Amino acid sequence: MLKEAIYHQSDSTYAYALDEKTLCIKLRTKRDGLKRVTLCYGDRYEPVRVVTMFEEEMKKVFTDDMFDYYEIIISPSFNRICYYFKLEDEEETLYYSQQRFYREPPEDRNRYFLFSYICKGDLYKAYDWWRDSIFYQIFVDRFNKEELDEAWFDKPTNERMFGGNLKGIINKLDYLEELGINAIYLTPIFESPSCHKYDTIDYYDIDKSFGNKKIFKELVEECHKRGIKVILDAVFNHTSSEFFAFKDAMKKGRKSKYFDWYFINEDGTYEMFGHSKNMPKLNTTNKEVKKYLLNIAKYWIEEFDIDGWRLDVANEIDHKFWREFRETVKAAKEDAMIIGEVWDGAESYLRGDQYDSSMNYPFMHVALEVFAKGTMNLKELDSYMQNLYARYRRDIRYNLLNLLDSHDTARFLYECSNDKEKLKSAAFYMFTTIGIPMIFYGDEAGLSGATDPHCRITMDFDNIDNELFTFYKNLTRIRRSSKALKIGEYAKYFVDDEVYAFRRFTDDEEVLCILNLSDKVREIPAYLDGEYMDILSNKIVKINKKIELVPHAKMVLKIK
Amino acid sequence: MLKEAIYHQSDSTYAYALDEKTLCIKLRTKRDGLKRVTLCYGDRYEPVRVVTMFEEEMKKVFTDDMFDYYEIIISPSFNRICYYFKLEDEEETLYYSQQRFYREPPEDRNRYFLFSYICKGDLYKAYDWWRDSIFYQIFVDRFNKEELDEAWFDKPTNERMFGGNLKGIINKLDYLEELGINAIYLTPIFESPSCHKYDTIDYYDIDKSFGNKKIFKELVEECHKRGIKVILDAVFNHTSSEFFAFKDAMKKGRKSKYFDWYFINEDGTYEMFGHSKNMPKLNTTNKEVKKYLLNIAKYWIEEFDIDGWRLDVANEIDHKFWREFRETVKAAKEDAMIIGEVWDGAESYLRGDQYDSSMNYPFMHVALEVFAKGTMNLKELDSYMQNLYARYRRDIRYNLLNLLDSHDTARFLYECSNDKEKLKSAAFYMFTTIGIPMIFYGDEAGLSGATDPHCRITMDFDNIDNELFTFYKNLTRIRRSSKALKIGEYAKYFVDDEVYAFRRFTDDEEVLCILNLSDKVREIPAYLDGEYMDILSNKIVKINKKIELVPHAKMVLKIK
Repeated sequence: MLKEAIYHQSDSTYAYALDEKTLCIKLRTKRDGLKRVTLCYGDRYEPVRVVTMFEEEMKKVFTDDMFDYYEIIISPSFNRICYYFKLEDEEETLYYSQQRFYREPPEDRNRYFLFSYICKGDLYKAYDWWRDSIFYQIFVDRFNKEELDEAWFDKPTNERMFGGNLKGIINKLDYLEELGINAIYLTPIFESPSCHKYDTIDYYDIDKSFGNKKIFKELVEECHKRGIKVILDAVFNHTSSEFFAFKDAMKKGRKSKYFDWYFINEDGTYEMFGHSKNMPKLNTTNKEVKKYLLNIAKYWIEEFDIDGWRLDVANEIDHKFWREFRETVKAAKEDAMIIGEVWDGAESYLRGDQYDSSMNYPFMHVALEVFAKGTMNLKELDSYMQNLYARYRRDIRYNLLNLLDSHDTARFLYECSNDKEKLKSAAFYMFTTIGIPMIFYGDEAGLSGATDPHCRITMDFDNIDNELFTFYKNLTRIRRSSKALKIGEYAKYFVDDEVYAFRRFTDDEEVLCILNLSDKVREIPAYLDGEYMDILSNKIVKINKKIELVPHAKMVLKIK
Repeated sequence: MLKEAIYHQSDSTYAYALDEKTLCIKLRTKRDGLKRVTLCYGDRYEPVRVVTMFEEEMKKVFTDDMFDYYEIIISPSFNRICYYFKLEDEEETLYYSQQRFYREPPEDRNRYFLFSYICKGDLYKAYDWWRDSIFYQIFVDRFNKEELDEAWFDKPTNERMFGGNLKGIINKLDYLEELGINAIYLTPIFESPSCHKYDTIDYYDIDKSFGNKKIFKELVEECHKRGIKVILDAVFNHTSSEFFAFKDAMKKGRKSKYFDWYFINEDGTYEMFGHSKNMPKLNTTNKEVKKYLLNIAKYWIEEFDIDGWRLDVANEIDHKFWREFRETVKAAKEDAMIIGEVWDGAESYLRGDQYDSSMNYPFMHVALEVFAKGTMNLKELDSYMQNLYARYRRDIRYNLLNLLDSHDTARFLYECSNDKEKLKSAAFYMFTTIGIPMIFYGDEAGLSGATDPHCRITMDFDNIDNELFTFYKNLTRIRRSSKALKIGEYAKYFVDDEVYAFRRFTDDEEVLCILNLSDKVREIPAYLDGEYMDILSNKIVKINKKIELVPHAKMVLKIK
């Protein structure tokens, strides 16, 4: 048995409560290393010398290139649990407890892993609407305005304001509804001198070029009428250098009561976002700053009923701040969704005490390599994604906000050298894998362009790419209709360099998602025979020992 | 290269800030698996296409039976860091970044591990006095009272009150000073019906049988005069069933404003500590409860200048509560020490946002096996302890409160079948290894006894075991005089079943600690020749290619 591959950590993303009565326990082992893994658990307060241990076999839920991940959900009748693992391979049986291996399980419960108590205060709750959502990211200045003129179609620059606004969005809610999305994330809308508005001047007002509070209220109401949620962008890492507090601090120096709101040095230099002098970094350990920012978070929920916050530069702000932010937001609206911008693995933010989700940039990176550039193959995709999912709690991995591109990257279609088939494959995977899909405005319409400013191109509603739009429409339709796609387990069924088939399943439902990246007809073996509906094309597929795949096939077969 | 053995996690106990300018990075590899590990790091905001990477070789700081642990401390001139590891064995060189291995380092910084920002709000600070301390745990009812009578020497029972009190402690401060301890941890002193006082009736008063606030103030002042710190026991998991809030809740049921302070069921049953009906569990998610308890934490610091809290049943209370507790305590006294009672690994509490230390029961368990029972050998001890230390941040592992026994266990001497040599070996190791030593009152005097009530035997100051007392006195002396013992690195030098020699060293100082468990003369090879002072015996030891060890030798050679 390869002991070095075995990993478990108590009271972590490897052992956590799903609710007051339920625990989820995870164990990592060498890939294909074991034939059976059993969780043995008991009441650590049982008033006997040797604790009665219950045994339940764990299920292998993920496999990456090196490891298998076993998981189990248990509902013990006691809430102070001690446990260890029974590990069996072809040659031996070992017991694993508190990072040590035993031939026989130790009798002393002090040697067991502990789940000390299922504490109400540490419970995490995910809400259905999150997993029911398909997000649409709108860069407000470039999406739509009331009356378009020729200038609207100019090439974007870093500074140029195109006049897109909230009214423009309201006017396109029919379009969004037809597309099938049901949550929009707006890049910042508060007063700011730039076109992107990531440098806020007034967190309590809508930028005039975007509209006003009345129009924003109308937007939220119109969205809610249509079952569309609205998420705003919280830019709390920094303000604009034109923000009142920063101006006061720069003017009065140490005498300013806002001096400590920022990190200002003796020589007048200061900490900033990246190298942007117009974005001085806020000192989120300052109590006044905290209070100020948390009030903003509350205000827009309470006054405008927004449904959550996307957190800009989330990982450059302290965990302590985000924990308080969570308390504030959840007190204002329990099911509000908190989504952090984190470009790498977000484990330290996604333990249940900070964010509900993160922008899944690691997903974007692999999607680019596999679908756009062809520098990774589907086997590697499978392994990478299973590794990624295995890192998170099961009640959080379904919240990850998957994306192919954003206002901070090149358009995915551009990265595909404008090969629509490639974008479609990537989008297909984004809609069928674990996590919440997010469309960057216009991807469904065929917008292309390199990174900022080119990706922030204006929409041309008169020239929507029909092929793409229809494809995305079908993706939103199947996603919204399928519990298996939203919250089902994930299991590879078949993979080679060009073909990937994976199952998504709940107790009630199962679909088989199949993707053929090649321009050739392919065949894969079938694990069942008969006629099955491809819910993406709404056509019946006949299976007889093998499944036939047309070039670039994309199918979601309804198995159960 | 055994990739399965390699582990790193960004923004965790494997990558954390020691201060605003300094990071500590850790990597786990297979034991003896690699010949060199290099940390490569750069400014993730460097405005160039490919980041300039700095390379520094990491040091192997711990080795357990399966793994090596490499650590490095870096002080980059930028505070947004990207990094990866260069791993070299005899056959190949691999690069490890974001849980993946590469033949060549990826060019794209999005593939690197990130330390997003050194956030002031998340910094952790340890204080010198903690590591300078030798703790002494006093079970107040049994330590001393003003005038002893014959009944004082009766055998302890679970209920019997012996009348030990605070005045009795004050009267023995000379004794404690002579012993050389400089911190005392008192089991609970607040009003309570029991002899152990873990069932509090009034958190704002000293139990009458122990004294009063005036005497407690005197105790703290007398201690502080002598450079002795005072830690109290915070029993916040539960109260006495005689506590006003619980009585009110039981009497008035749902109509009581204290009903939600506990977890009371429809049928009148309630959550409790263990199976103790007289200890109903507090609902620490209730805001009023939180406020109530946090005010207590503050009160005893502000009014009586205590130096910290030991947290009873710490791991059955939510992390959220402890985070707020930390904020409160540190606001009241920055260098107050917070020590959680956790019987297994305390990783989830010792990340810097909750406790400063935990009662190191895992240390006690291995000490029992190795020194008392002989069921584990010294090689296993070495491996176990290195594993344990490697689990914690380097600024926290030195805070661990090592203990051989407590009011909740049998006396260590009892576990040794009263073989004093065994206790001395264990104490020697406790005082020379990483962590803060804590003596359970009377261990130094030869007290023995099985678990509660027998371990809670009264002190007999007229019959102190001189051999043990002198030995402990020497241990406190060397510990207090040696920076290497307090905060030095730890490295095994020689180990077999009966002999263990390990180095403790800082840049300025080095000692070689040697322990011979056998009753035979032993020899071990020397890594240096010449004459060295054994600071424990204050005798010169001559080394010539080998070190000679008398039976049961215990030496601390001053090498530098």
